[in-house]
Amino acid sequence: MTEVLTIALDVMGGDHGADVVLPAALRFLKRRNDFNLLLVGDRQVIETGLASLGASGNPHLEIQHASQTVEMDELPSHALRFKKDSSMRIAIDMVKAGKAQACVSAGNTGALMATARFVLKTLPGIDRPAICTSLPTITGHTWVLDLGANIDSSPKHLFQFGLMGSVLASAVDGNANPRVGLLNIGEEEIKGSETIREAASLLSASQMNYVGFVEGDDIYSGKADVVACDGFIGNIALKSSEGVAKMIAHFIKREFTRNILTRMVALLAMPVLKAFRKQIDPRRYNGASLLGLRGSVIKSHGGADVLAFSHAIEVAAVVVEQNVPELISSQMQSAMVERKVV
Amino acid sequence: MTEVLTIALDVMGGDHGADVVLPAALRFLKRRNDFNLLLVGDRQVIETGLASLGASGNPHLEIQHASQTVEMDELPSHALRFKKDSSMRIAIDMVKAGKAQACVSAGNTGALMATARFVLKTLPGIDRPAICTSLPTITGHTWVLDLGANIDSSPKHLFQFGLMGSVLASAVDGNANPRVGLLNIGEEEIKGSETIREAASLLSASQMNYVGFVEGDDIYSGKADVVACDGFIGNIALKSSEGVAKMIAHFIKREFTRNILTRMVALLAMPVLKAFRKQIDPRRYNGASLLGLRGSVIKSHGGADVLAFSHAIEVAAVVVEQNVPELISSQMQSAMVERKVV
Repeated sequence: MTEVLTIALDVMGGDHGADVVLPAALRFLKRRNDFNLLLVGDRQVIETGLASLGASGNPHLEIQHASQTVEMDELPSHALRFKKDSSMRIAIDMVKAGKAQACVSAGNTGALMATARFVLKTLPGIDRPAICTSLPTITGHTWVLDLGANIDSSPKHLFQFGLMGSVLASAVDGNANPRVGLLNIGEEEIKGSETIREAASLLSASQMNYVGFVEGDDIYSGKADVVACDGFIGNIALKSSEGVAKMIAHFIKREFTRNILTRMVALLAMPVLKAFRKQIDPRRYNGASLLGLRGSVIKSHGGADVLAFSHAIEVAAVVVEQNVPELISSQMQSAMVERKVV
Repeated sequence: MTEVLTIALDVMGGDHGADVVLPAALRFLKRRNDFNLLLVGDRQVIETGLASLGASGNPHLEIQHASQTVEMDELPSHALRFKKDSSMRIAIDMVKAGKAQACVSAGNTGALMATARFVLKTLPGIDRPAICTSLPTITGHTWVLDLGANIDSSPKHLFQFGLMGSVLASAVDGNANPRVGLLNIGEEEIKGSETIREAASLLSASQMNYVGFVEGDDIYSGKADVVACDGFIGNIALKSSEGVAKMIAHFIKREFTRNILTRMVALLAMPVLKAFRKQIDPRRYNGASLLGLRGSVIKSHGGADVLAFSHAIEVAAVVVEQNVPELISSQMQSAMVERKVV
């Protein structure tokens, strides 16, 4: 007998809560009715929401009541101490208890990371969990981690990020030998800090397909399948990229709406612009994995819409099917046997 | 009697050497014939080049022979020791000797920084020179530094970067009170390292118009006129941004060349796309200042074309007219009087 895999959803988290999470859940189930979803949050809000969506009796949905909500600007330490009955906490508890195989939350990142780490604990050999997401490249996509969970990462941590990213890329993309790069700056001679150089030698000596240093622009060139970096660096790279993309979108829009003529051109160019936008639609990249924990936790963007949140649930589904935590654990064990230092 | 201001150009530096630098020099002089240019490099190459451009007798041009060239992949230490008669070195020597008020080079960044620092020395109170350039924003532009000259910057260094950027923004943009932001990540509670927090308190306590932490995407939102950060971080932010912009350009081109129909739309949309591209044309942002030295040195992108290199000369012209090193020096003196610690 195979138990149906279950994903817990933090219904109250994010900027839009149930208004986005419930329709996203239904959207997901249309594509993947081999999964069950456990809706965690205020029972009445959820029941009312499902009724209005005509989904009250859906056999793939179950409700788990939680009386509290973690606020988007709440301090992680506060959430950890005073929100033990929050939808976020209960969703993670469900993973811990084995009632769900993963959970997805659009709630505040710091609180989610702190709670997940406290409840689930890290895998053997992993010092710090990392946040990992895929970003579009000219040729496909790249997995980048850490995106902000850790600052001042040591060489050992950077090695672990490389390993975890490599496992995720293998599992999700079916890429047997993902190329792992280490984010660095291009200046010769300095070539990054001592930390980066030590991390490079740990990665070189491992079984991983380490391809050396990559620079910021290589994230989007497809030079590596996995880009490992400290969380401060990764966060700045991600946010800068978002900033540039937003600015470009702003300029394109401004030029195309400048006058009646450009507006007419815009109408004609619409299908082309739409096809282009689809390529870099951040909603298609929504769903960051918190890697290195004894359980799967997926972070959705706080402002995610229905399409974006349903994509995050799909990420969770793949991570669950592939049993990513188990894979990371066994890879980490081999790495530790291989090299005592790590 | 006012001496005519002179800018020395490293004619042999960059990917294209004289082929780009000489026409760029003429282009610059068409707009600014109140300047003289000192062309540093192989005399024969320069004379032949000028002759072919019909500019042999131009009274605003002077030639300074240099027998060597610093290679683009040469180690800074090697250039420093063995290339004392290189066009790069002699151009900087001209600034030191007062024969030029600034120099511009498209040569290798590491060698340029090392040589400039060795020959010119840093200003009193400045520990490390920084690389600063302006980047486009939705509302105008932002000055970002450091972009890769320093890694592991201390709070004091970050403070100095803020001060130098603030002086440059004032001098170039005529902005009397530029808003200075400190690049950080958004996670609450961790909110960056101890270093960042200490830098923030130094900046807060200063006369500068410090506006607090900014995130990666704020670089392009126009939230600050100056963004101070460690060189590793700044380099990654800059390169990631370039990578995204390149990827977006690639996707736009691909969609518009997909078939005969999209190609026709592209023809119609061309003027609009051109106007948009002009907004973020990296050539219009070419010319990074090496700040904190006792003299003005401008770094052009190695692959710069004529338009781009002439823009870098224009940056040098403004920096010279405003006497930026002098301004930095006096601001730094006031800051040191103000707070003994800095």
